[in-house]
Amino acid sequence: MEAKVSIIMGSTSDLSVMEGAAKILDEFEIPFEVNALSAHRTPAEVEEFAKGAKDRGIEVIIAGAGMAAHLPGVIAAMTTLPVIGVPIKASLDGLDSLLAIVQMPPGIPVATVAINGAQNAGILAVQMMALGNDGLKDKLVTFKAALKNKIVKANQELSEIKYKFKTN
Amino acid sequence: MEAKVSIIMGSTSDLSVMEGAAKILDEFEIPFEVNALSAHRTPAEVEEFAKGAKDRGIEVIIAGAGMAAHLPGVIAAMTTLPVIGVPIKASLDGLDSLLAIVQMPPGIPVATVAINGAQNAGILAVQMMALGNDGLKDKLVTFKAALKNKIVKANQELSEIKYKFKTN
Amino acid sequence: MEAKVSIIMGSTSDLSVMEGAAKILDEFEIPFEVNALSAHRTPAEVEEFAKGAKDRGIEVIIAGAGMAAHLPGVIAAMTTLPVIGVPIKASLDGLDSLLAIVQMPPGIPVATVAINGAQNAGILAVQMMALGNDGLKDKLVTFKAALKNKIVKANQELSEIKYKFKTN
Amino acid sequence: MEAKVSIIMGSTSDLSVMEGAAKILDEFEIPFEVNALSAHRTPAEVEEFAKGAKDRGIEVIIAGAGMAAHLPGVIAAMTTLPVIGVPIKASLDGLDSLLAIVQMPPGIPVATVAINGAQNAGILAVQMMALGNDGLKDKLVTFKAALKNKIVKANQELSEIKYKFKTN
Amino acid sequence: MEAKVSIIMGSTSDLSVMEGAAKILDEFEIPFEVNALSAHRTPAEVEEFAKGAKDRGIEVIIAGAGMAAHLPGVIAAMTTLPVIGVPIKASLDGLDSLLAIVQMPPGIPVATVAINGAQNAGILAVQMMALGNDGLKDKLVTFKAALKNKIVKANQELSEIKYKFKTN
Amino acid sequence: MEAKVSIIMGSTSDLSVMEGAAKILDEFEIPFEVNALSAHRTPAEVEEFAKGAKDRGIEVIIAGAGMAAHLPGVIAAMTTLPVIGVPIKASLDGLDSLLAIVQMPPGIPVATVAINGAQNAGILAVQMMALGNDGLKDKLVTFKAALKNKIVKANQELSEIKYKFKTN
Amino acid sequence: MEAKVSIIMGSTSDLSVMEGAAKILDEFEIPFEVNALSAHRTPAEVEEFAKGAKDRGIEVIIAGAGMAAHLPGVIAAMTTLPVIGVPIKASLDGLDSLLAIVQMPPGIPVATVAINGAQNAGILAVQMMALGNDGLKDKLVTFKAALKNKIVKANQELSEIKYKFKTN
Amino acid sequence: MEAKVSIIMGSTSDLSVMEGAAKILDEFEIPFEVNALSAHRTPAEVEEFAKGAKDRGIEVIIAGAGMAAHLPGVIAAMTTLPVIGVPIKASLDGLDSLLAIVQMPPGIPVATVAINGAQNAGILAVQMMALGNDGLKDKLVTFKAALKNKIVKANQELSEIKYKFKTN
Repeated sequence: MEAKVSIIMGSTSDLSVMEGAAKILDEFEIPFEVNALSAHRTPAEVEEFAKGAKDRGIEVIIAGAGMAAHLPGVIAAMTTLPVIGVPIKASLDGLDSLLAIVQMPPGIPVATVAINGAQNAGILAVQMMALGNDGLKDKLVTFKAALKNKIVKANQELSEIKYKFKTN
Repeated sequence: MEAKVSIIMGSTSDLSVMEGAAKILDEFEIPFEVNALSAHRTPAEVEEFAKGAKDRGIEVIIAGAGMAAHLPGVIAAMTTLPVIGVPIKASLDGLDSLLAIVQMPPGIPVATVAINGAQNAGILAVQMMALGNDGLKDKLVTFKAALKNKIVKANQELSEIKYKFKTN
Repeated sequence: MEAKVSIIMGSTSDLSVMEGAAKILDEFEIPFEVNALSAHRTPAEVEEFAKGAKDRGIEVIIAGAGMAAHLPGVIAAMTTLPVIGVPIKASLDGLDSLLAIVQMPPGIPVATVAINGAQNAGILAVQMMALGNDGLKDKLVTFKAALKNKIVKANQELSEIKYKFKTN
Repeated sequence: MEAKVSIIMGSTSDLSVMEGAAKILDEFEIPFEVNALSAHRTPAEVEEFAKGAKDRGIEVIIAGAGMAAHLPGVIAAMTTLPVIGVPIKASLDGLDSLLAIVQMPPGIPVATVAINGAQNAGILAVQMMALGNDGLKDKLVTFKAALKNKIVKANQELSEIKYKFKTN
Repeated sequence: MEAKVSIIMGSTSDLSVMEGAAKILDEFEIPFEVNALSAHRTPAEVEEFAKGAKDRGIEVIIAGAGMAAHLPGVIAAMTTLPVIGVPIKASLDGLDSLLAIVQMPPGIPVATVAINGAQNAGILAVQMMALGNDGLKDKLVTFKAALKNKIVKANQELSEIKYKFKTN
Repeated sequence: MEAKVSIIMGSTSDLSVMEGAAKILDEFEIPFEVNALSAHRTPAEVEEFAKGAKDRGIEVIIAGAGMAAHLPGVIAAMTTLPVIGVPIKASLDGLDSLLAIVQMPPGIPVATVAINGAQNAGILAVQMMALGNDGLKDKLVTFKAALKNKIVKANQELSEIKYKFKTN
Repeated sequence: MEAKVSIIMGSTSDLSVMEGAAKILDEFEIPFEVNALSAHRTPAEVEEFAKGAKDRGIEVIIAGAGMAAHLPGVIAAMTTLPVIGVPIKASLDGLDSLLAIVQMPPGIPVATVAINGAQNAGILAVQMMALGNDGLKDKLVTFKAALKNKIVKANQELSEIKYKFKTN
Repeated sequence: MEAKVSIIMGSTSDLSVMEGAAKILDEFEIPFEVNALSAHRTPAEVEEFAKGAKDRGIEVIIAGAGMAAHLPGVIAAMTTLPVIGVPIKASLDGLDSLLAIVQMPPGIPVATVAINGAQNAGILAVQMMALGNDGLKDKLVTFKAALKNKIVKANQELSEIKYKFKTN
């Protein structure tokens, strides 16, 4: 099946972080592709990728990069598809990549998530695609309920743990 | 016409920044609403707002807030619609609101734009809505071309200015 | 015995930090409860918790959270009980959670302690409860004296260590 | 009437900020005193102040200071009363005073509010004193409702403004 | 005469800063050109510019940009000419643009100067071009001597001022 | 009379800050000299200055500089006299100059004071010189008492102001 | 022999850092004492220590502390002896303790060294004491020469290592 | 063969980082030398080194240093050769050395690369030397192509990995 979301990262070493987005898309059964292309080392390939994405049927692009993280912004400059940026922690605790992704100038937005927050990038992509897709809308409601249940269950387990404090 | 995008801000004093989003939506002829609701001072109203948005036909929410900016995240917690967060500069050059918006935990994304970047929030909302709307897709292409032309024209004017240096 | 202090955290993984508050309350024989509820993943449960706390006899709430830490502020928005916020170090050395907790807007305070400073949150809760409780006041005086004695004793041991330098 | 809350600041130049706390206490009709004492320039006076506060009937201390802001912590070291710290912006956007106040070591908490957040310090003091005072509890509920109404009214005004965008 | 240095900036509003580089090149009688091209708004023009620079006789590129400043890095990705990056202060005191320019990944350097340090970018360009140009080498020695003389003269004036202190 | 303290700054534009040190030395009747020498623009003059200082009778050097503030460290590298560093706020709120002065490597200390804290640099110089000078020791005690009295008097004036709050 | 320098730290856990100062004083054969006293947990002992130091023959105080590091400033407030502050890295990479020590208000300086820079604190103390002590002055010259020789020797070893690169 | 690039570092412990520059120069067959000289501990040697570099045939200097990193700026002050600065991460995640190197005052540039970015310093040196050397220009084009191929190959491997996600 043809990919609808494209996950792209500046280096294959970012794969362990960017997997978080892939897993979410898999869970929502949204076809996706994964590419490593560097804004700095393969600019021509990035351009070809960005300009061709819409015609290949891509609807949302998720781009992760570290340090002076230009990849999400460079792609956003070359497409009108929504681009989600994932700042990857490689130096300075990820503050450099966060600022290099989120502080885009007027005209070219990048939808930025938390440092190393690839899972949320996946969910955000699903939320965007659900705008015209009732099936995805329903799946998101189920997903949110599952998140809640996990916490509620964890809380029940906590109730038992806490008595250990009290009897000390 | 019924609003499709909801612009919400923590305080009416944020209006001068958040106007940037409204102007873009106006330009793209997307109906929108503007509300001031505070995650901290009107939590019940925020909840009612967030939970009812989807049923009222809202497709994207743009939320701006300053300081310990909880509004975008609190709304994202209560809806499956995509939420775009605008960090507003009120103290610490806006670094506090940026971190309080972008660093969301796994499960609940907020699509964060630059500090005071409301215009980009508007464009991002249009990009999301264009996923299933060919008319908007075309308008975005035109909009991007206009951005380019503005720079190209500015550059031409610059060419003349520069000769002043040279003859200096 | 009915809990008078409620310790709440965004995730059970915060338990190892938040124990510090529990141990202090245990030491002062103040009944407490421990819950894991997430401002983002279980907003309805958080609301029920916050709104019901006063009627259940809770006097002080201690809330810990990391990253874009909204939990303390969200609870403070829904109760008039004093809320103590504990920024938990999960990314950016905890600076994000510190700013997301302490920089509350006018009207809704959160009494913030140090990053991972749950023990001090416990002491602060005791200080608040001691306002109308002479027994607790006396215990606090004893507690403070014990803190001092620990340092004084440590200093005596240091006196012996230092001679090793001198004869070096 | 005898003061129950003591507002103290490192320099009289901090008065314009610290007034925020005084106005809240005034509104809640809680008697208070205002002093300027410096941890660094009048340490003996600070000590006398801190040690005598409880016996003079003071229940909560609100201390504001800028730069290497030691005043709240120094007072907290000398009393078992709860101490609320207000970081005052004098340099580095107030980040220095925030860290110098909030990052207290285990054993001696300071309940820290936002940079220049004196109004919230006042509200927090009221919340603490309300623990054993039903009259204050009721006033806090009224106060919170008023905060909400201000936003709700602002929102209504906003509704009218927004049509200006739409008709452009 | 054909330009040997190309000064490029993301927006014409950066001209007042980037003039600093132009003035130095003027002083050293090095022909230069000035362009405003945006990595985000005119990516095709930037690419054409970067790829053609070497063949047009450009030897050094000076690129200034603010916020998520991608321009210097994007150009460096497309040429083997040395690229000097000037972080422009537009938000966060310029820290965002500094990090977005200097923190380039291995393989693609950008020679970064101080925030708003366009004058030094000009001097650095001259130093590079002087590598194979004895005339420029001599001019740089003269320039350095002039810098020194300015300080030495300022110091002499200071000697007279200081006596005002001494006599109080 | 021969100077015993040398105040040196990287640029005459720093004079308005560095005056704070001069005024203190004047008040303590310690002869001093004021020079503007730049670690970067007049390195030979700085070296001559630093190496000759001890023999000319200088006992303490106070050096102020902004941005990448190398002057205090460069001087400290060339003398065994104590060097006091004053970080001057020129960019990034002075954080760059603070770190460039205080973070000296093992072996070469610079006694750093607050950003723009030239007055304290003057007092610190007096404290050092008082080590072997009973007259200065006594003057320091008097100076400290005067500081205290200023605060005590300010506090008395504050007592009157505060009644305005109470009567509202 | 009676101590002339007093090394004081907020907690015995700081000993591994503060040893750096002790070793320098030992090397220069300056008698010293080591104490652990906390500005927050043993304020009375700190006061007694600070006020009595001068009469006990102490000439310089070296104080180390972490987090909201008040110890050096609190001591400086109570003595006219020079106080050297050592910011200890305990959280936020030591930035909190650096700012809490160096940003002292006008009137009360603390001579601050690098984060964990206790060795330099020791050298600075020696430099201060050398003001009226020719023997120490000579030792400092010898010490500085030894520092240089270590680097010069390291450089010679480096010369041999580098040939490994060249032959690759 | 005589060195054309000089790599200098503040301490031999920086060698593991600075090797990155050496390896690049080796790859481009540019003769280089490696020295450890400290701006603070061997100022006279640094001066001799910096002033003699041009006459010894050095064309570019690469200087690495950590903390209050003065070495690159001090060398730049004493030569008209281009100086490339490598901020070395030793404390505060390298932010102190970055600011101490890049924030040079007008007149004396240092071409700064990323924190620990010695490899890029090497490439930048080659780019400068290629200005008048067609052989180096060609090698740089080959080098850039190789960088691209590495990413392109990595991307091909990634294509296979991604199918593991899809079949989950």
